[in-house]
Amino acid sequence: MQIPFNKPFLTGNETKYIEQAVKSGKISGNGTFTKKCHEFFEKRYGFKKCLLTPSCTTALEMAAILLDIKIGDEVIMPSYTFVSTANAFVLRGAKIVFVDSRLDHPGIDEEKIEELITSKTKAIVPVHYGGVACDMDKIMALANKYNLFVVEDAAQAIDSYYTGKDGIMRPLGNIGHLAAFSFHETKNVHCGEGGMLVINDDRFLNRAEVIWEKGTNRAAFFRGEVDKYNWVDIGSSFLPSEITAAFLLAQLENLDDIQRKRKSIWSGYWDGLKDWAGAASVQLPFIPGNGSNNGHLFYLVCKDVEQRTAIIAKLKKNGIQSVFHYLSLHKSPFYIDKHKNRELPESDRYSDCLFRLPFFYELTIKNIDSVIQIIKF
Amino acid sequence: MQIPFNKPFLTGNETKYIEQAVKSGKISGNGTFTKKCHEFFEKRYGFKKCLLTPSCTTALEMAAILLDIKIGDEVIMPSYTFVSTANAFVLRGAKIVFVDSRLDHPGIDEEKIEELITSKTKAIVPVHYGGVACDMDKIMALANKYNLFVVEDAAQAIDSYYTGKDGIMRPLGNIGHLAAFSFHETKNVHCGEGGMLVINDDRFLNRAEVIWEKGTNRAAFFRGEVDKYNWVDIGSSFLPSEITAAFLLAQLENLDDIQRKRKSIWSGYWDGLKDWAGAASVQLPFIPGNGSNNGHLFYLVCKDVEQRTAIIAKLKKNGIQSVFHYLSLHKSPFYIDKHKNRELPESDRYSDCLFRLPFFYELTIKNIDSVIQIIKF
Repeated sequence: MQIPFNKPFLTGNETKYIEQAVKSGKISGNGTFTKKCHEFFEKRYGFKKCLLTPSCTTALEMAAILLDIKIGDEVIMPSYTFVSTANAFVLRGAKIVFVDSRLDHPGIDEEKIEELITSKTKAIVPVHYGGVACDMDKIMALANKYNLFVVEDAAQAIDSYYTGKDGIMRPLGNIGHLAAFSFHETKNVHCGEGGMLVINDDRFLNRAEVIWEKGTNRAAFFRGEVDKYNWVDIGSSFLPSEITAAFLLAQLENLDDIQRKRKSIWSGYWDGLKDWAGAASVQLPFIPGNGSNNGHLFYLVCKDVEQRTAIIAKLKKNGIQSVFHYLSLHKSPFYIDKHKNRELPESDRYSDCLFRLPFFYELTIKNIDSVIQIIKF
Repeated sequence: MQIPFNKPFLTGNETKYIEQAVKSGKISGNGTFTKKCHEFFEKRYGFKKCLLTPSCTTALEMAAILLDIKIGDEVIMPSYTFVSTANAFVLRGAKIVFVDSRLDHPGIDEEKIEELITSKTKAIVPVHYGGVACDMDKIMALANKYNLFVVEDAAQAIDSYYTGKDGIMRPLGNIGHLAAFSFHETKNVHCGEGGMLVINDDRFLNRAEVIWEKGTNRAAFFRGEVDKYNWVDIGSSFLPSEITAAFLLAQLENLDDIQRKRKSIWSGYWDGLKDWAGAASVQLPFIPGNGSNNGHLFYLVCKDVEQRTAIIAKLKKNGIQSVFHYLSLHKSPFYIDKHKNRELPESDRYSDCLFRLPFFYELTIKNIDSVIQIIKF
């Protein structure tokens, strides 16, 4: 393989910071590096409170606990997403109500949400696919109208923005009541496996700390508010180690450079493929006017599965790894019987026809040109 | 502070292995270093299958899912344990039935389990406190008699053994149907935050892999058994990163040296304090004849809370950090109403009177002598 799909990289300070953490005498969770990561995000994006987690999956699980999801509650989300978006709520007993994707991009079709809201609906979970914002004005309006919570699945959406009808540009993850980010190795900034819960709604601030610390009031104890720390709620070990946080902080310190590089990779693919795509009936990424491009991934949507299979095979033959993405969750072995035959054709189309090109910090212009040339000829 | 309670350390290869992981192109979970850790444990202790997890907490959560714990199921465990032992099962809807500790050590009182078994009991979770084996013959006999599962909470029990009535010495974690280990920074071998699920019962092997991989059949996919990997079950992101596994592997390669050192620290405390303890009515650690000492921690049980407070204060005044341990879970704010007034006096006694001395690899003989002298005089 000459060009892999993904390749993690060191910005320089990762292992130095890990050694510092060890020398400081604390490498379990919620130490200096964790706090520095929280401060970075809170300052840069105005998030009210951030809590690093072992994964975006576990950040979503914290959200499901905070929303007090119970058996029979309904949660609305796109079918074209990662299993964790759904699993986190299923673990608390939720019924998942899947929505189709948009025609112009794989995000949730905002126009098809309202018809699925019932008296049991508790939350909407929009997924900002590829870092591209869902129409948050529409989604928040529905949440207000029906008294629902919104959890942004911002796994891919670091450093991406949404401009509301009020003309204000807000970072993704700062709009819903809660939001979950991923720092998995394929993400713009990463630490192998990692995630973060963002709490934007005051009502969740105290309980989030408790759930994060295994259901104990340890945080209040260290602030001197209680004299012993005790078991007060459900919870889990939602704290990543300082090793993980130290690695992540080194990446965060290079976020601007990373973002510049990734956006230029994205533009390289776009410029090289846009004319070809029109001729080949291939759908290009679409970024709505109220969204932004965070250079997370570059996908193409083929006209059919055969075309996709052929292009992936051609790339593979030339040593280039390209991969498709999700399979519709409503058709999964686990959920097909629970979904009851409601067709979601766009979700199925992206499942069959979308694939992603190699995308990582160290990808060169020459690499990009090779990929483009092989796709085109 | 001159002598902290705990101090993590590098054995030497941690950051080198992390750099190797990054260079290999994969730092998300289930890569080379994760597999090497699994092989280490499977080979050294004869565990049938190991799966690294982000924490011991999450390993216990995997166990609760594997046992198919549902609302109303009862799970029996000691009250004198970490909140995660209970939380992991409460998250699945279990009612926790707490048992008192033994008079001679803080482990579960094996004689008091049977009277608490009902038709709703699903599992027993013995906790090997301080790495000291519970009487597993008795516990496994009860499990067989009543058709229950046994999950060993072996958080502190790495490299510790139990000799059964059959005369065979088995590693802890290799006796119950499932077992959970911790690699938290206070543990003998550590990676900041980390854990491992051990699967000893064949019935759980396949599903454990699925639950570990977010409820997908990804493992079967990579073995070529299915042609796409899909959502087939509940699950979570139970894989730690390769960064975490790389760090842990470096520690594991030094396990014998670590164990020699820790056992000598333990003996140093024992030799220096045993005569004093008798005179001061202080209870020393007890290791039953069928158990072993893995040098995990050194505790003392004072005659009352006042004596404990005084000794901890005296140590603190001299720059030495000693700490008490658990608070009875049956009296916690979260569970007191659910427990219904059944008294567990030994658990309360350990909550009030037990404390632990500084214990880490780099603790010197001089440090140990200082601690002993300050306690004694």
